[in-house]
Amino acid sequence: MPGNSFGHTFKITSFGESHGPAIGVVIDGCPAGIKIDHAYIQSELDRRKPGQSAIVTQRKEDEAFEILSGVFEEHTTGTALCILIPNKDARSKDYSHIKDTFRPSHADFTYDAKFGNRDYRGGGRSSARETATRVAAGAIAKLFLKQKNIKINAFVNAVGNISIDKPYTALDLEQTEENIVRCPDPQKAIVMEKLIKQVKKDGDTIGGQISCVIKGLPAGIGEPVFDKLHADLAKAILSINACKGFEYGSGFEGTKMKGSEHNDSFSSIDGKTTTDTNYSGGIQGGISNGMDIYFKAAFKPVATIIQDQKSVDKTGATVNIKGKGRHDPCVVPRAVPIVEAMAALVIVDHLLRNRSSRIN
Amino acid sequence: MPGNSFGHTFKITSFGESHGPAIGVVIDGCPAGIKIDHAYIQSELDRRKPGQSAIVTQRKEDEAFEILSGVFEEHTTGTALCILIPNKDARSKDYSHIKDTFRPSHADFTYDAKFGNRDYRGGGRSSARETATRVAAGAIAKLFLKQKNIKINAFVNAVGNISIDKPYTALDLEQTEENIVRCPDPQKAIVMEKLIKQVKKDGDTIGGQISCVIKGLPAGIGEPVFDKLHADLAKAILSINACKGFEYGSGFEGTKMKGSEHNDSFSSIDGKTTTDTNYSGGIQGGISNGMDIYFKAAFKPVATIIQDQKSVDKTGATVNIKGKGRHDPCVVPRAVPIVEAMAALVIVDHLLRNRSSRIN
Amino acid sequence: MPGNSFGHTFKITSFGESHGPAIGVVIDGCPAGIKIDHAYIQSELDRRKPGQSAIVTQRKEDEAFEILSGVFEEHTTGTALCILIPNKDARSKDYSHIKDTFRPSHADFTYDAKFGNRDYRGGGRSSARETATRVAAGAIAKLFLKQKNIKINAFVNAVGNISIDKPYTALDLEQTEENIVRCPDPQKAIVMEKLIKQVKKDGDTIGGQISCVIKGLPAGIGEPVFDKLHADLAKAILSINACKGFEYGSGFEGTKMKGSEHNDSFSSIDGKTTTDTNYSGGIQGGISNGMDIYFKAAFKPVATIIQDQKSVDKTGATVNIKGKGRHDPCVVPRAVPIVEAMAALVIVDHLLRNRSSRIN
Amino acid sequence: MPGNSFGHTFKITSFGESHGPAIGVVIDGCPAGIKIDHAYIQSELDRRKPGQSAIVTQRKEDEAFEILSGVFEEHTTGTALCILIPNKDARSKDYSHIKDTFRPSHADFTYDAKFGNRDYRGGGRSSARETATRVAAGAIAKLFLKQKNIKINAFVNAVGNISIDKPYTALDLEQTEENIVRCPDPQKAIVMEKLIKQVKKDGDTIGGQISCVIKGLPAGIGEPVFDKLHADLAKAILSINACKGFEYGSGFEGTKMKGSEHNDSFSSIDGKTTTDTNYSGGIQGGISNGMDIYFKAAFKPVATIIQDQKSVDKTGATVNIKGKGRHDPCVVPRAVPIVEAMAALVIVDHLLRNRSSRIN
Repeated sequence: MPGNSFGHTFKITSFGESHGPAIGVVIDGCPAGIKIDHAYIQSELDRRKPGQSAIVTQRKEDEAFEILSGVFEEHTTGTALCILIPNKDARSKDYSHIKDTFRPSHADFTYDAKFGNRDYRGGGRSSARETATRVAAGAIAKLFLKQKNIKINAFVNAVGNISIDKPYTALDLEQTEENIVRCPDPQKAIVMEKLIKQVKKDGDTIGGQISCVIKGLPAGIGEPVFDKLHADLAKAILSINACKGFEYGSGFEGTKMKGSEHNDSFSSIDGKTTTDTNYSGGIQGGISNGMDIYFKAAFKPVATIIQDQKSVDKTGATVNIKGKGRHDPCVVPRAVPIVEAMAALVIVDHLLRNRSSRIN
Repeated sequence: MPGNSFGHTFKITSFGESHGPAIGVVIDGCPAGIKIDHAYIQSELDRRKPGQSAIVTQRKEDEAFEILSGVFEEHTTGTALCILIPNKDARSKDYSHIKDTFRPSHADFTYDAKFGNRDYRGGGRSSARETATRVAAGAIAKLFLKQKNIKINAFVNAVGNISIDKPYTALDLEQTEENIVRCPDPQKAIVMEKLIKQVKKDGDTIGGQISCVIKGLPAGIGEPVFDKLHADLAKAILSINACKGFEYGSGFEGTKMKGSEHNDSFSSIDGKTTTDTNYSGGIQGGISNGMDIYFKAAFKPVATIIQDQKSVDKTGATVNIKGKGRHDPCVVPRAVPIVEAMAALVIVDHLLRNRSSRIN
Repeated sequence: MPGNSFGHTFKITSFGESHGPAIGVVIDGCPAGIKIDHAYIQSELDRRKPGQSAIVTQRKEDEAFEILSGVFEEHTTGTALCILIPNKDARSKDYSHIKDTFRPSHADFTYDAKFGNRDYRGGGRSSARETATRVAAGAIAKLFLKQKNIKINAFVNAVGNISIDKPYTALDLEQTEENIVRCPDPQKAIVMEKLIKQVKKDGDTIGGQISCVIKGLPAGIGEPVFDKLHADLAKAILSINACKGFEYGSGFEGTKMKGSEHNDSFSSIDGKTTTDTNYSGGIQGGISNGMDIYFKAAFKPVATIIQDQKSVDKTGATVNIKGKGRHDPCVVPRAVPIVEAMAALVIVDHLLRNRSSRIN
Repeated sequence: MPGNSFGHTFKITSFGESHGPAIGVVIDGCPAGIKIDHAYIQSELDRRKPGQSAIVTQRKEDEAFEILSGVFEEHTTGTALCILIPNKDARSKDYSHIKDTFRPSHADFTYDAKFGNRDYRGGGRSSARETATRVAAGAIAKLFLKQKNIKINAFVNAVGNISIDKPYTALDLEQTEENIVRCPDPQKAIVMEKLIKQVKKDGDTIGGQISCVIKGLPAGIGEPVFDKLHADLAKAILSINACKGFEYGSGFEGTKMKGSEHNDSFSSIDGKTTTDTNYSGGIQGGISNGMDIYFKAAFKPVATIIQDQKSVDKTGATVNIKGKGRHDPCVVPRAVPIVEAMAALVIVDHLLRNRSSRIN
């Protein structure tokens, strides 16, 4: 059974390989009446695109997109909405060095093991190229959320050993886009940028972490017992290339706490039920409680490095592999809009799913 | 849209409230030919059941189960398989203290916000009582895996600040069931047990972590791009009550590493492609690579504590709430079989899903 | 991939074999707030149950049912709702005559071919016993529709060569339950009953047709392009045992008409858009238009007959088979509530699905 | 919840409006290893395309297609496969006559009722233009079936009152493509063609029927109890524009038969279990039995006629509407490849689904 669809009511299906003619995404279940803002969609794609700064891959991807269906007179019509993004940089290169060999910690070997063949050009379907379609679909979801006053902000929380040591509530998230690292702590951003540049110079890569905050979601969203809101967020985020971990609310640190410390006592403020602390991360029993939702994601270092590596080829013979050309020294600056997009897809899907929770 | 089903090809649907007549689970998509071992299913349920040791809740749940369908002459028939577990301890109690008030960090408020009503007896559907059905369905999945020589072992990795400081490869996982904490490091187990007992005495609770290792899964299992194997594992595990985080392979620690350190170089051993290290956690590009899969999960402290807590009632008035009676001081010892069950459900589902990956 | 679930938002999963301890159904996605009327559910089950009249099988099935979950204080809670129906007549009989042989036009051979084994007692999962769970779930759906003033009426339209020769608009559908055939044309009912009794006396069976009318469904329900309302109705009805055909609106007769005769011109009556004729059967482009929906279903003669029949056994040897005991001489009188139940499940599912068609 | 996807394991998602830039389809779950034959796909599209003969609409649709993903070195790779078909004839016309009025027996009113807006150009999403994507995806499915020696043949069985009066077994189905009606009975074809031409001359339209035969499907395919093979075929066929009815095997005629006449006795021929007659239509209990599967579908007359018709506009005012320009006088000749395509999609989906029916 296939795995290129995500969501249930607001359901996306993604397609496309790194070096095929185009990648794209179909949103089936996009409600009628979303006002389409082409410039906004483009700006979201631009936040993800290569070549945008000195610390990302220098490949050229123009990221022009076209909406093929589902929109009429600048509004969604409720029919399936397809966004197409041509692969402009899909030049015919020499891929003989990876055709029959397995790059360490890439998906070359596993795709071969699964399917018996693979489109090896630029990683084919396993390339992070595919995440552009997530951002495109996520932009539609965000336009929906905008009309509902729900806001999603992701930011770089750590690069290697350098991490923000304040809670998100002490940060000005509006500053995230002010630097090329996408870190809202300006001092940390400078150190992170320096580290990324050094790593790049060494032909190496480095991991990092992204935090994300969702504000304005009303209480009552999420579907227990399996489709808990945080469980679907976890799946969404861990489906992004290079993601290795997810935690929400108190997360792994919370495992060291006692119930008497960790429980969020309730208050009533202006008729609204709120919590005095938010170790729950805005979700209780898998359902939103109206407080901020926040989570953190771990990203491993990019596997492509400009250094010699030992590997094997299809015959089992030992080979030496060396990454070529352009790559990201650190994935997190460009992954920020991807994390936001996946979170937006989950939230819109669950908002729509919740519409059938009561008889009226 | 509902959320009480999990899986696609081996799909379970769970039902039942804490204090209704019974809980149960239907497996739709259970292949014909699994040999049913009733004693094994019972032993799995017993690993989760309350009252099994001095460090878990003392409620009595007998956990007798009955298979209502889908089995004939001790083998699955391929039709929907229903397992029913009666609620023997569902005595009529006084629940007036939680009927109209919201217990801190429970799901009382959010269920009310979502559905407009709720079965408040013992937490109703939000109670961890529901996890018994996961263990029951997981036992069927494990019987399937047994026939395929795939083995899943979870164990307690940390309780509060006390954690195992060795990699799983340095542990004898067969020792997990030798102590009531379910920690395969005997020295640590003693300290953990002591901590749990102290916390219990204080009317408090404490969080913890569980690790899980999957051995014997062949390469090629997992469905990119959204249903990556680890993404589905993450969702499965985070859907368990009290779970706050998930990481696999190098996880959050891996974010501090460089690509040159983190990449798993390939070797060929006896014609089998293997990796020299396993920071990938047995999964590359969302597909298993034949190495051990391992992951870790974070569990928050149980919300029920025998201490006064501030909260509000439905009218918004401030109230004082105090937990009553029997509860788990630490969830992780009993959560070990639940983690294994959810992992088994994911693995069986993906093994079956993979059967349509090639034309022959 | 399994096939024991039906519906998407109001989704049922059915389980149980003819001679197991119980059959049952889980509704996942049942909205909170439906008022449960136990007597009504029982009355629906009684309309389907064996032994209710002289022209149906004389097996005794008491059809007591129990709601195990999802209901609290007589209202649905929004959690998974399980209804269990014990098999009271599941006595241990001699089934050796069908264990290794294939009854003509039953599912014995195909279940064996598919699964490699089968529960042969009373037909196992392929028995029409399973349809009781459809009626039970359908009764919940009908309680929902009652609160929305939507009404579903099925009736016997033909038995063998005897059929009603008036359109449904010329019939008083309230008379359907006035006779044991469930035919609202009293004169025809007498002739049909006579035919069924003669066929029964001969140890034979006879086919028939059921019509169904849905009144009160608002315009706008149905999901093109694949989940057209009539396409989902067709699947629902054809999934009932012995059903061989489905047509809606003008159906097969309409293929002989010209567009100028068949088109339903529009009028506006009291501000409501209506059609002057209704060859469309209340559905245009797969979406309801607010007019009556009507369809017809074909049911083959029951395969169990008290006559000698030639067949083969598992080894391929020719055998003589003779049906034993109690069977229905004609399936349509008891199938009327099943058709209504399946239609109700489709309508409720689509009403809920439609809630996400627009942004607000 | 959306309705633009069909199938479970071999799942297609269709998108596109009649006058947008392109229509297309994504196959998610297409197994790796299908040999792609571009000329064959084109030939299938050409069988459906307008302008192919004197009795179909004279619109020009070139039906060039492009495969954007999922194919490498002329074989499917197992990743999502997207086929794009540009709308070459999407010229900017004057649609003011249908913008605010509802054409009788079209989907104008119901789309408006559902979504609150609609792309009215050429019918938008409700146009039969969309069926080209079904044929494209169906061609991939047929390439799969070719490798499995399974063959699907549909043909025109009736136009208006003129119908073939022989069983399909007495016809040479290879002759279907020999005439422009796609009727394998050459004498009947001549009369049908004459009728269609007369109807066209009158500015009118006429209905018809299509039969379909599936040969070579092994026994054991189909998923009871809801996803019976014929139930999924019925849904697939009734989801095609203008389809009003479906019957398989003995169908509606079979309702007049007795069990003793209708039962298909078994024989064993060369070690294979077969039936002596085939009233079952190759399916018993929802599962194929290895005999030919055959079914029939009813298609209403096309709603677009070149005659004055009474209708209403959005304000409820009575208006006169007259169809313009080019339309099909009878839908069945062009619907033949669409019926085959939908049948192929169902068969491939069920072949793959069946792979998880047994433990090995």
